[in-house]
This record gives sequence, C-alpha cells and structure tokens, in this order.
Amino acid sequence: MKKIAVIGAGNLGISAAKALELSPDMEICGFIRRKNQKVNGFADIPVAESFFDLPEKPDGAIIALPSRLAEEAEKQLLEAGIFTADAFDIHEELSGMRQRLSVFAKKGGVSAIIGAGWDPGLDSVIRTLMLSAAPSGITFTDFGPGMSMGHSAAAKSVEGVADALSFTLPLGHGKHLRKIYAVLKENADKTEVEHAVLSDGYFEHDECSVSFSDSASDYFTAGHRVKINRFGSSSGTGNQHIEFSMEIDNPSLTGQILVSAMRAAFLQKPGAYFMPEIPPCDFCAGEWENVL
Amino acid sequence: MKKIAVIGAGNLGISAAKALELSPDMEICGFIRRKNQKVNGFADIPVAESFFDLPEKPDGAIIALPSRLAEEAEKQLLEAGIFTADAFDIHEELSGMRQRLSVFAKKGGVSAIIGAGWDPGLDSVIRTLMLSAAPSGITFTDFGPGMSMGHSAAAKSVEGVADALSFTLPLGHGKHLRKIYAVLKENADKTEVEHAVLSDGYFEHDECSVSFSDSASDYFTAGHRVKINRFGSSSGTGNQHIEFSMEIDNPSLTGQILVSAMRAAFLQKPGAYFMPEIPPCDFCAGEWENVL
Repeated sequence: MKKIAVIGAGNLGISAAKALELSPDMEICGFIRRKNQKVNGFADIPVAESFFDLPEKPDGAIIALPSRLAEEAEKQLLEAGIFTADAFDIHEELSGMRQRLSVFAKKGGVSAIIGAGWDPGLDSVIRTLMLSAAPSGITFTDFGPGMSMGHSAAAKSVEGVADALSFTLPLGHGKHLRKIYAVLKENADKTEVEHAVLSDGYFEHDECSVSFSDSASDYFTAGHRVKINRFGSSSGTGNQHIEFSMEIDNPSLTGQILVSAMRAAFLQKPGAYFMPEIPPCDFCAGEWENVL
Repeated sequence: MKKIAVIGAGNLGISAAKALELSPDMEICGFIRRKNQKVNGFADIPVAESFFDLPEKPDGAIIALPSRLAEEAEKQLLEAGIFTADAFDIHEELSGMRQRLSVFAKKGGVSAIIGAGWDPGLDSVIRTLMLSAAPSGITFTDFGPGMSMGHSAAAKSVEGVADALSFTLPLGHGKHLRKIYAVLKENADKTEVEHAVLSDGYFEHDECSVSFSDSASDYFTAGHRVKINRFGSSSGTGNQHIEFSMEIDNPSLTGQILVSAMRAAFLQKPGAYFMPEIPPCDFCAGEWENVL
C-alpha cells in the first residue's frame, strides 16, 4: 500500500483524497496545507505545513495547488525522493516544466507525471490517439458549459478580486466565451480589475466578459463538459470522424485522474512525463485486461 | 526508414499498404500472399509467398490475414527477428496468444503488438482510459450499423459458403444483431450452412439472421460505427458520463492503426503487447506534443 500525501486541500485536493480512499493500492497519509488545521471530512488524516512534518514520509504526493504554485512544491518533493503527479494546466508552459522537473526527478530517483488532469491530461491522450488513428485532419476541442477550476483560480488571484468563478461556454469549433463572475474587494476599481483579469494569460486568448456580483458562490456548479472532434483521413481515406465527449463533475474527474497518474508514476523510470507517454494500463488498479 | 512487409493483400492489407506509403518513417518493401501476383495499385512492390523470398529482409511485418491464420505466420516472423503488428480480433483468445507469441518475440529479440485494430485495439485503449477516469461504473460498446470484416471473413470460411458479408446492427447497451448475407456454393445445403455459420465462435454470442443471396457484394460498404459509453463514478462522485464514437471507413482505420502499432512495436522491449500497454505517443510519427 503506497502512502500518498495530498498537497492542497481545496476542491481538487479533497476529490483526490476521496479517490485515494477508494483506491485498493494507495492510501492517504496526510494533507499539506498552509493553515495547520484538519480537513473537513478527514478528521483522522494528519495535516502539516510541509511534508517533512508528516508522521511518515510519503511514497508519493499529489499536487492539488493552483498551477502556478505547483512547480516549486514539486521540485522539493522530487528531490526528496517522492513521486509526484500534478494537474498543471498552462499548455504553453508544459514543455519547459517537464524539462526542469525531469532534472529534479532524476536527482531523486523518482518520477513525476505532469499535466495529469482533464485538459491537458486525459484529453491530451485522446487527441494523441486520434492523431495516430487519422494522422491528417483537423481536431476541435470544445469545452463547456461549465466552470473552469484553473480559470476561476486565476481570476481569484487577480489583485482587487475577493472571489471569482469563470465559466466556459462553447462557441463551436474550438472557440470559447469565458464568463467571469467576480466579487470586488473593498475599494477595488472595477475598470482596473477587469483589465487585469482580461490581460491574464488564462484569458487573453478567448472572448471574455467580466460581471461583478455580490456573491460568486451563487453561480457555483462543479459540472463541466467537453467534446473533441477529429475529422481526418486514415490510410488516405477521408471522412473519418472520431468524437470523444464527457459530462462530468470536474474536481471529481480531475482528482481521480491525479490518483490514476500517481499510480502510474511508480511504474515509470526516473523522469518527468506527460500522460500520452504513459501506457494507459498503468493508470488502472489491475482490471484493465477485462476491458480489452 | 523502416522496411515493412504486408502479409495478406485483401482490403486490410491494401489499406495498411496505403497508410505505409503516407507514413514518414516506414516504407512497404513487399507483400506476402498465396498467389505470387502483383497487387493492384502497387505495381512496383515485390510480391512473394514467403518473407524469405523478398528481395530484402523486412524490419517489420503487418499481419493482414484472417485472424485464425495470424498466429502461425507471426511466430515465424518473430523468430526470424522481424517485429510484427496484427489486428487479431477474437477477444477470448487474446491472452493465450500473447503468452505464446511473447516466447517467440523474446527468442527473436523483437516485439509484437497484438489485437491492434479497432476492437480489440483502439477501443480497448479507450475503455482502459475510461476505467482509469471512472473506476467504478458500467461500459457499453455498441457497434454499427456497418460491415464487420472479421465476421464476414468467418462467415466466408464456413464450408458451403462461396461469399458472405456480415453486418452488425446496434440493439443498444452492448447488444447486437448480426445480419449475414451468404452466397451458397453449388450443391451446398442451406440448413446445414446456416447451422454451421450460427455455431461459429464469431456468431454464437449474438442474435443473428442468415439470408441467402446471389451476390454478397451488392451489400458491400466499408463504413462502420461504434459508440462506447461509460456511466461511472470518479472520486466517489456519480453521474460521470464519458462517450467515444467513430464513424469510419473500417479497413482504412484498421490499416492505419496497424501501421501506427507497427511504428510503436519498434520502440518496445522484446515481448508481445496489447495496445493499452503502449504509450500512446509511440503510435505517432512525432507531432503528438502539438496536441498536448
């Protein structure tokens, strides 16, 4: 039974912890969070501000922090010989991050699976398979309607924002509208906050609208959706259409994928990996030959 | 540039050959077929009855034979140090076949990817991923409407049958109706042939109907469809729905998957593998990081 620490105790960390509780081969040995306070629903699980302070050294750690805090936490863990899985979701920064984390993983003799969430993550594996089955053609990934955890966290971290939720609405063929509901901090300036949100890397590529509201939580729903469509050719024959879609509770799916990636991390040679580099059977707890 | 022989020159072999022509890292170096006669559309490609007789030894071989002829052909190739990929499609026999081929692959210092078609094959990888993302729940695989190549070949090989096509029609939730259109050989007995078809392993698990006709080719269409639905739980949260579907030209898809599996075979340690055991990026010719 591998002992796993969960770094972060927000929606995603709690989902990952629940997935660990249901997993036959791993168990949660602690949460790492800033405030040294028990996590709701996990009264028996130790909490510490650093993994050094947990009662026992974890074999692995699931990173359930906002993406921009992931890398620093992960470097320390890997160097200390702890396997990791994260759901880092900034596509453009994945390559550089893998290169940097690879060095630390090899130093620690362990492995990291990065970008192991929904997208990047499971969707990346699907797009890779689509590419292999229809090597020429065009792929569209359409998200929503649903709340984006990464985008909500990004909006929340903007100066002057007390709370925020970001919804993703599909406009079709890979275009999206992002609707951000933000609660202003006292004395914050609407125009400045709106400008700061819209110029964040998370938002600058899409059509966006920012609304200010007294409460962001009234808009909360953890449900989300995606459709990936590939229109392509196989063996030179056109009109091949491959589609993948999900209607899911987002933190639950992402937490589960993190746990599956954590499992797979223990089976890889030292280094940092993206999900399409991992044999899919390594994500499963053992029953996969039944679904051949 | 890896040199690949295609064993068999039916629909599937020809599709695989076309996929090889379009592939940047492999080229076709010969067809192996019973009749020593050039393959239509491939006038420049050598043809031989055995791979020993090809002008140059292939690095790999794609097995495009009826499933029941695959294993014997593959054993010889593997033992001779030639990597292989097959689209063997009899689910119940996959495990045994892998075990037996593994011995020959290791003897030859090469690897084989078996069951590398549509289902088993790509669908198996999808079901494995679904299992990892929603570990408890139920999955339905619904095929059709479309012609099944494996079932058509099985019906054709029944004594008394001159030609046959087998259509798969989805009845929903994993149940199927198989409609077989068969042309009788002179003097063959309808009742006996019908009984022989229906008791074949390919047909005994499904609802089937056999019709006799003067021509099977009037019914020919290479189009096919599948929908895989998983209704499950992630991190203990229900109502997760994941769906995968394809509308495709079947030999073109299967030929392409065989070529992608051939590519991946060269990257594995000696042994025999199912597709879910292979990192998905290994199936691609190199551009997969763009779809992360």
